[in-house]
Amino acid sequence: MIIDLRSDTVTKPSKPMLEAMMQAPVGDDVFREDPTINALETRIAKMFGKETALFFPSGTMANQTAIKLHTNPGDQVICDKYAHIFNYESGGASFNSGVSCQLLDVNDGMFKASDVLNAINPEAYYYSKTSLVEIENTANRRGGACWDFKEIEKIRTVCDENKLGFHLDGARLWNALVAKNETAEQYGKVFDTISVCLSKGLGCPVGSVLVGDAAIMQNAIRLRKIFGGNMRQAGILAAAGLYALDHNMDRLANDHSKAKEIGTVLSQLSSVKSVEAIETNIVIFELNSDVNEKEFTKKLADKNVHIISMGGNKLRMVTHLDYTDAMHEFLISTLKKR
Amino acid sequence: MIIDLRSDTVTKPSKPMLEAMMQAPVGDDVFREDPTINALETRIAKMFGKETALFFPSGTMANQTAIKLHTNPGDQVICDKYAHIFNYESGGASFNSGVSCQLLDVNDGMFKASDVLNAINPEAYYYSKTSLVEIENTANRRGGACWDFKEIEKIRTVCDENKLGFHLDGARLWNALVAKNETAEQYGKVFDTISVCLSKGLGCPVGSVLVGDAAIMQNAIRLRKIFGGNMRQAGILAAAGLYALDHNMDRLANDHSKAKEIGTVLSQLSSVKSVEAIETNIVIFELNSDVNEKEFTKKLADKNVHIISMGGNKLRMVTHLDYTDAMHEFLISTLKKR
Amino acid sequence: MIIDLRSDTVTKPSKPMLEAMMQAPVGDDVFREDPTINALETRIAKMFGKETALFFPSGTMANQTAIKLHTNPGDQVICDKYAHIFNYESGGASFNSGVSCQLLDVNDGMFKASDVLNAINPEAYYYSKTSLVEIENTANRRGGACWDFKEIEKIRTVCDENKLGFHLDGARLWNALVAKNETAEQYGKVFDTISVCLSKGLGCPVGSVLVGDAAIMQNAIRLRKIFGGNMRQAGILAAAGLYALDHNMDRLANDHSKAKEIGTVLSQLSSVKSVEAIETNIVIFELNSDVNEKEFTKKLADKNVHIISMGGNKLRMVTHLDYTDAMHEFLISTLKKR
Amino acid sequence: MIIDLRSDTVTKPSKPMLEAMMQAPVGDDVFREDPTINALETRIAKMFGKETALFFPSGTMANQTAIKLHTNPGDQVICDKYAHIFNYESGGASFNSGVSCQLLDVNDGMFKASDVLNAINPEAYYYSKTSLVEIENTANRRGGACWDFKEIEKIRTVCDENKLGFHLDGARLWNALVAKNETAEQYGKVFDTISVCLSKGLGCPVGSVLVGDAAIMQNAIRLRKIFGGNMRQAGILAAAGLYALDHNMDRLANDHSKAKEIGTVLSQLSSVKSVEAIETNIVIFELNSDVNEKEFTKKLADKNVHIISMGGNKLRMVTHLDYTDAMHEFLISTLKKR
Repeated sequence: MIIDLRSDTVTKPSKPMLEAMMQAPVGDDVFREDPTINALETRIAKMFGKETALFFPSGTMANQTAIKLHTNPGDQVICDKYAHIFNYESGGASFNSGVSCQLLDVNDGMFKASDVLNAINPEAYYYSKTSLVEIENTANRRGGACWDFKEIEKIRTVCDENKLGFHLDGARLWNALVAKNETAEQYGKVFDTISVCLSKGLGCPVGSVLVGDAAIMQNAIRLRKIFGGNMRQAGILAAAGLYALDHNMDRLANDHSKAKEIGTVLSQLSSVKSVEAIETNIVIFELNSDVNEKEFTKKLADKNVHIISMGGNKLRMVTHLDYTDAMHEFLISTLKKR
Repeated sequence: MIIDLRSDTVTKPSKPMLEAMMQAPVGDDVFREDPTINALETRIAKMFGKETALFFPSGTMANQTAIKLHTNPGDQVICDKYAHIFNYESGGASFNSGVSCQLLDVNDGMFKASDVLNAINPEAYYYSKTSLVEIENTANRRGGACWDFKEIEKIRTVCDENKLGFHLDGARLWNALVAKNETAEQYGKVFDTISVCLSKGLGCPVGSVLVGDAAIMQNAIRLRKIFGGNMRQAGILAAAGLYALDHNMDRLANDHSKAKEIGTVLSQLSSVKSVEAIETNIVIFELNSDVNEKEFTKKLADKNVHIISMGGNKLRMVTHLDYTDAMHEFLISTLKKR
Repeated sequence: MIIDLRSDTVTKPSKPMLEAMMQAPVGDDVFREDPTINALETRIAKMFGKETALFFPSGTMANQTAIKLHTNPGDQVICDKYAHIFNYESGGASFNSGVSCQLLDVNDGMFKASDVLNAINPEAYYYSKTSLVEIENTANRRGGACWDFKEIEKIRTVCDENKLGFHLDGARLWNALVAKNETAEQYGKVFDTISVCLSKGLGCPVGSVLVGDAAIMQNAIRLRKIFGGNMRQAGILAAAGLYALDHNMDRLANDHSKAKEIGTVLSQLSSVKSVEAIETNIVIFELNSDVNEKEFTKKLADKNVHIISMGGNKLRMVTHLDYTDAMHEFLISTLKKR
Repeated sequence: MIIDLRSDTVTKPSKPMLEAMMQAPVGDDVFREDPTINALETRIAKMFGKETALFFPSGTMANQTAIKLHTNPGDQVICDKYAHIFNYESGGASFNSGVSCQLLDVNDGMFKASDVLNAINPEAYYYSKTSLVEIENTANRRGGACWDFKEIEKIRTVCDENKLGFHLDGARLWNALVAKNETAEQYGKVFDTISVCLSKGLGCPVGSVLVGDAAIMQNAIRLRKIFGGNMRQAGILAAAGLYALDHNMDRLANDHSKAKEIGTVLSQLSSVKSVEAIETNIVIFELNSDVNEKEFTKKLADKNVHIISMGGNKLRMVTHLDYTDAMHEFLISTLKKR
């Protein structure tokens, strides 16, 4: 029994998901003739109350496309210091869109509408033009924390008043919806574009979807082609998405409760200095300064439990679809013995 | 019975291919842990005698990555007027790599080493720097024509003497190999990078592979990430590739002979002015000026035979894996009746 | 006496021009406070009947800015095969704007409205989007030839019907205006943006100006800043422009008649195969195949007459402000002796 | 008597400088034939002990060129939060080079070698590649503060150990050299590229120069052409530079002592909360919270003294060549009366 808690991206498609994929009607999506792709896109657009959705091979491409839709080269994007788009997309925002990021480092990543307002560049030709605000919900590097929807609405108002686009990196939005009892539709109402991932909490092998209204999405398919994200019989992948929307959504609550249980146990360990607040499926904890991070990790690995380092004596565990009850029991008891 | 000859990209995965896909061991390819991806990449690298191969969601992304690997912004690429990279990748070469194309329009697209030599810009700071030569084999817009390998070797020499990279868009290279009895290895020896497609002649749903030696390929995975081509459990797609390499390669000869038979029949029709030389699986023919292209196409469509226009009263048919013997018989007899 | 006919860019500011420069009131143009810059921009905008003009350190930057004003990355520009923007700006259109060029090679560079229409890409996401048409008047590599204004108006109509921008590279527009008895205003009416050069026929040391209406020019100053073309007390350079508009415009006719006289003499030389039609100040002629180009050039250089090669046994002479009557007499008599 | 202390960029060329400009031998610098340009470049290269120097129309273009020389699209640059290249060049680093900035906000902008080391991204394909460190000396937004040269040397070591380029934005380096009794040569030894400005402290109307050894500078002239910074008879501007190096360097000490005197007086005003440490020619001071910034500025403007706001009730004065002793006396007495 190998327990892989490094990320929720490591899940493998289940048997029934594979069967759904195998039986899916497919076509050439470059000609827009794949019925399963079309079905998935229609369904997700509808969930968010948006006119359009487009399937992408990755969340990175969905985000990179969104950034380009909202900006011109030389523009500036306001986002959290730890935003995935700045830190984990290989500098793609600058490479693909020629934009820079104005990073905010306030309130543990949950910046306020007033912070956005202050970060907008004055209108002068020697300043970069601010044109987009981006948030990530849940926020990966902020321990899977969920945004306060009321604050999001206030940020929307600032965007409106300053003619800024508003994009949501919803790689783990499903977790936020379940944790906070929110709906896709309410998010669709405040954001111009939203990317959601099928291969994290939902357990699909591949795929993300970008939603938005027709006007802003007009060039999305062109950009996907430019990046090379156009695929042929992609319906095989979309079928997994449709399956996951039906079967793997509600169970995210299970991942969350397991994460919290892990957190509780960790907080009682003498080797652990602190555990960050756990709102969804990510557990970030810091070891005491006299505990060697590598040794700690190694001991777990020896028991086939794999986790990753966040740097600075901090470690991360992520619960997911393939983290079973049996694994959970084993982990809890293993931790308690330490 | 619907006969779709618009392109060889319309094939759908066969039952045994789907089974191979569903049984494939997978992992998270972002961590490079997908065993089936790794197996496919290793196998294709070996076929071409190259050190490295990388799986891509599309041939467009494989080509765009190759162009970036060989060039710096402002550089120039020498290629045929009808090159896919210039005409059918949404201006991606300029968008992604900031390069321009010096288009050659000689010898029906089969330009000579001397043409390349003449097209290299002189070394002066006000000229764009020529840094890459690209050819496409078989050449799609040139009717699936195959390059003369001896000329390719001469172009290689020009590239060496002028420090130019040499990239092959091998979207239909498999067809050339089978038609001309050539080997992947001999192509690996003359090109720096080669993209090959799994979803045209080979019949896979999704995927292309870029090969090259380690030095030139060093940044390929980074560029794939920047474009958003990194996928998670992509082994499902790679499994189709492995299956196709085993089962769908030799049969390309069958597509070629069918194409030639169609050509022979077409050339005898009173409505057809001429049929371009057929070397592989693409049939391009021109209607007599008194024949209405749309009517001609419509009449075939009424019999469930779908083909596409190339403009200028020219039409195109492409044979492929899903174009069965029964379909072929039906098409031949239908055409003969005209 | 050194006779430099390599280009009309070699002129040096005359004494009165220098005096005008030194007496000009200046200020910090980064703050838009240079009165001489403002005066020059206002004057040239008015000449063309446009709302706005902006001073640039070079025609290249004025053109590159115009291209960016009209396009988005990935777009395509229609222009002549020998366009300066494609051939002599170091690949800047791709580097700065991420665009490609659809080069036309018809009618000695004087393409027709119908050629433009045919060159517009169909609207599909896999084609580059055509967004700009550019012409050069006079056309440098076409021997200083002047466009037919009636055809330009027809091209304007095609641009309107297809929502394309229309830019004029007017590096030598002054020569065309004088040669064809046309006005700046009529050009202002048909083009969206026009760049004009102060340092060729007009004899200024440095500077070009881009004109256009306020809407299209809105980002021009921002782009100039991005490229680094913002200068401080640039009024010193603008003063030369104001002086030249007053004193060096009408005399261009003189350069043209000298060029024609040179052409007449050349056409009578046994060593000369042909002389291209001369409409303005550029003389392009081809040597007989038995005449060695380098020797021919060398013999002239020995007499302090400097000209340049265009490749293919063709040579170029350009008349200008610093090519005096005495030089002209000497050259004519020298040529006649050959 | 108008006293303009908004910036040291507002100086106008003096009579003898204008005369030097007027008498300078010039040529076409696009052909590299301007003797005055060549003389200035040779002189400045030699000052810094570098192989090459190149004249630019602005410091922005010199910096933008340097960034491109050191980086590839997608790379990351480490610099201070208030760096000119990030804040005041219109997003040019992202537009022109496709790079992002890793901004440091430590030690009042004078970051340490250890800060650089911590800011380098780990080597993984999903991180942006760190490739350049940039510092600004003196630091404009840090009140004209001078770097500790010993720390610069330590940063050089970090750059060497991590294969990073090291660029100095020396817009006001001359002030630092004079203030700290340092030499251009010692800076040439630790930096790969250095931009210096002729139009701030030195009082020229236009121009900056980039220095570096031949290998790194190889593409500088090409990039200058791509941006459109190639000028024709630019020697007129270079002559001002040569004049200024001879006559306007040592007198910078005078600007500095005046700035300090202003600071002393300001610190005694009841309306002033604090004055930042003054090392060179920039005075930044903060008003008491009960003093209205606009009123304060307005009152000075009414006496023809112009200064600018830095935001947050902070104001800036910059002393320079055109700020005479008489103006200084007037300002000091005016301030004392408040």
